[in-house]
Amino acid sequence: MKLYEQVADAIAARIDQSYYQVGEKLPSIRAISQAHGVSISTAQEAYRLLEEQGRAEVRPKSGFYVLAQSKSPQQLPDLSRPAQRPMEVSQWEDVLELLCANTNREMIQLGRAIPELGAATLKPLSRIMADLNRQDPLATLNYEHLRGSDNLRLQIARLMVDAGCVLHPDDIVTTTGCQEAISTSLRAVTEPGDIVAVDSPSFYGSMQAVKAQGLKALEIPTHPETGISLEALELALEQWPIKAIQITPTCNNPLGYTMPEANKKRLLAMTKRYDLPIIEDDIYGDLAYQAPRPPALKSFDTEGRVLYCSSFSKTLAPGLRVGWCAPGRYLNQVIHMKYVVTASTATLPQMAIAEFIAQGGYERHVRKMRAQYQQSRDVMIGWIEKYFPAGTKISYPHGGFLLWVELPSELDTSELNEYLIPENICIAPGVLFSASGKYQNCMRLNFTDPPNAKNEAAVERVGELAAQLITEQKATLNGTKRV
Amino acid sequence: MKLYEQVADAIAARIDQSYYQVGEKLPSIRAISQAHGVSISTAQEAYRLLEEQGRAEVRPKSGFYVLAQSKSPQQLPDLSRPAQRPMEVSQWEDVLELLCANTNREMIQLGRAIPELGAATLKPLSRIMADLNRQDPLATLNYEHLRGSDNLRLQIARLMVDAGCVLHPDDIVTTTGCQEAISTSLRAVTEPGDIVAVDSPSFYGSMQAVKAQGLKALEIPTHPETGISLEALELALEQWPIKAIQITPTCNNPLGYTMPEANKKRLLAMTKRYDLPIIEDDIYGDLAYQAPRPPALKSFDTEGRVLYCSSFSKTLAPGLRVGWCAPGRYLNQVIHMKYVVTASTATLPQMAIAEFIAQGGYERHVRKMRAQYQQSRDVMIGWIEKYFPAGTKISYPHGGFLLWVELPSELDTSELNEYLIPENICIAPGVLFSASGKYQNCMRLNFTDPPNAKNEAAVERVGELAAQLITEQKATLNGTKRV
Repeated sequence: MKLYEQVADAIAARIDQSYYQVGEKLPSIRAISQAHGVSISTAQEAYRLLEEQGRAEVRPKSGFYVLAQSKSPQQLPDLSRPAQRPMEVSQWEDVLELLCANTNREMIQLGRAIPELGAATLKPLSRIMADLNRQDPLATLNYEHLRGSDNLRLQIARLMVDAGCVLHPDDIVTTTGCQEAISTSLRAVTEPGDIVAVDSPSFYGSMQAVKAQGLKALEIPTHPETGISLEALELALEQWPIKAIQITPTCNNPLGYTMPEANKKRLLAMTKRYDLPIIEDDIYGDLAYQAPRPPALKSFDTEGRVLYCSSFSKTLAPGLRVGWCAPGRYLNQVIHMKYVVTASTATLPQMAIAEFIAQGGYERHVRKMRAQYQQSRDVMIGWIEKYFPAGTKISYPHGGFLLWVELPSELDTSELNEYLIPENICIAPGVLFSASGKYQNCMRLNFTDPPNAKNEAAVERVGELAAQLITEQKATLNGTKRV
Repeated sequence: MKLYEQVADAIAARIDQSYYQVGEKLPSIRAISQAHGVSISTAQEAYRLLEEQGRAEVRPKSGFYVLAQSKSPQQLPDLSRPAQRPMEVSQWEDVLELLCANTNREMIQLGRAIPELGAATLKPLSRIMADLNRQDPLATLNYEHLRGSDNLRLQIARLMVDAGCVLHPDDIVTTTGCQEAISTSLRAVTEPGDIVAVDSPSFYGSMQAVKAQGLKALEIPTHPETGISLEALELALEQWPIKAIQITPTCNNPLGYTMPEANKKRLLAMTKRYDLPIIEDDIYGDLAYQAPRPPALKSFDTEGRVLYCSSFSKTLAPGLRVGWCAPGRYLNQVIHMKYVVTASTATLPQMAIAEFIAQGGYERHVRKMRAQYQQSRDVMIGWIEKYFPAGTKISYPHGGFLLWVELPSELDTSELNEYLIPENICIAPGVLFSASGKYQNCMRLNFTDPPNAKNEAAVERVGELAAQLITEQKATLNGTKRV
């Protein structure tokens, strides 16, 4: 047993013996270092392990806190059980309905994944954009290079060090949001008719990209705390001619989990054996509540088989439409697809973001938002526990601002949404996140906004209507049985 | 014979009899109306016909002028003779080389199609962008609707009346440049392996979209004054299972022609017989030198089979990355593809362009640029006639800022470019514009910049090197023959 493992065990034992209660602050890293006579870095490693084990969690600018032994305070959804064969993706009509419902500005948008845009720490970005238009209008109006702004790619390469990735700016291509990164990556590594393995539930935007490319999705059972089941994935790889894997391993959308590092390494080893590319969506990775953020899958990739996709749409603002792709060995194919699809990414937002990062604005803003979202998560979970029907299971996000809720099987959340929308409330129904029409009794909710009475009332109303629909459905089923 | 045809004939007879010399101003519409005792609109129709016949040309804010009887002052390229079978598109490496060469800011970019960005009439657009960032930062940071900004789509619908199109804003989807409009349109109406008929030479960006979608291009012979040969197209439609037609019928890139209205109507009738969609690239249409601008193919489309694609990249600025698509009956497919590819178009540039159009800035700027480009065209043609080797043929653009030059068959313009680039001059070699590797002895040049000594020297140098390469090649061929 390594030294840091011994220290972690010692702390865990004290938690088990109730020397530290759930929610209580643990000793600082310095205190642990002194108490156990180990180095600061060993103490840090010990806490890292406790975090991985779900025994402790970090709160930025504060310290480490004891987590409940069940790893999370509420009952988690079960391991998902999607269809065990490749499926064509449908659900486009439902996705379109969600996107259109969200254009109503009165709507309380519990369904969509838009970050908070009103934070004071984001204001300098708008100022920078205004200044650039005055100072260098010619540059802002011209094409950027096909690969993207030099300055921005340099700044992105620097940011990605936090995710454990050591890249050259020329390994990076900027894109029109993460969506372009994902869809061009998919087109770069697959042909129509191919099978792609995906985590399940999975972000509907990636699923629609799978559909548009004429691919079939093989949904792999996924655990709400540790992510895609590697055992199930291995079985699938043996059984089907899978051509690529597409996952969101860090601060997953919609489940919020982060795959443990060991799983990320095992996944990479597996794809090496099967010689497969992996499309990694890391769009929420920088919003992990733990600091430093967990390493990306890409950070363990020595062979260039990970096509890393991300954007500033969740950390800064989606209207900028600036994302990026680090496609490893598939760089040339991605550049070709990027050229064909949009020729280049809008110039001004790229210039502005590069300057915002250089001035330290990105770090400042993201640090603030991580802490805010973590607090909002706890409030949101409290509301759901209070207002939703008995038997509701809730995911426990490690980052970002999205929650997955599983309700009793009698509920159809698409039907629920039809009742909610006229009341100006909108959720994201579970079926959007599956090729095989699973998760009808699930929904994705966001906790973007700082907690407020209006949102609490909306969550209460969702829970109330859900309970009502479940009761009605049960009555109908009983009635049917009697007939 | 209709009245306006009689009037046109009368004016043409006076030109033939040298009452009006080549380059001389013709009587005003009002003068013709009085002289011939016809209505103003009949006089206008007569001039429209003379323009179509290539006897007269309009100069904005000035009037009508006599054209040389050969329709244009210089010898035109021949009707193109591309391969007569569907081909896979190659040339990506050459396109990439061109795109990368153009990122050198010292380079005199005769090859790329970037409009003039320094015009005073464009400055208000930068001011509007700066103001929007200050006044409404929240709106500029958020997602726009999937279909695009409401205000912008309304303004686009208004602009398109000039092209003869009567559309509702909801018939329009904004895109990340024209490239996204074209590539999503292609994906909406074809499957990999399909055959698409294209004009030839054809814009390399569209050709690469054909390649990326796994399609084959069937290049149709194209006339440098009247566009795609309808006879050749009809033969091709009889012979091959063509699934779509992709053309740039107005102010064509690279040839500069505008298809006569009668041809546009015949083309549409033909696609009706074969039940085919047409992808119309109209990106240069608003830069036609004649006023009002020629009607778009879309304007004659009563069945929704034209997927109209355009953008503000040539009329305003490419770095904005704002284009649009009016996909007719294929609207739902295009919206799906647009969502999959980029989710939505950057917000701020859409807001800014809508405001710029609303303030009258678009009309003012485009009017100015049309006149400027027309004057630059004449200067550029003069330079080419002066500096290029004997036997050079030059297209006679009806709009935009691009010229097509055909040199003696001994010249390889890709080789020429290799000599030019170290001297910081870059042209667009002809092979980029063909799937079948034709047009090796051709090049596309732009006349974006107001005429200046530096550009004249560059054109002179291109001509000089071309002549030298032709002489060397002839000597080699003779030498080979002797051996």
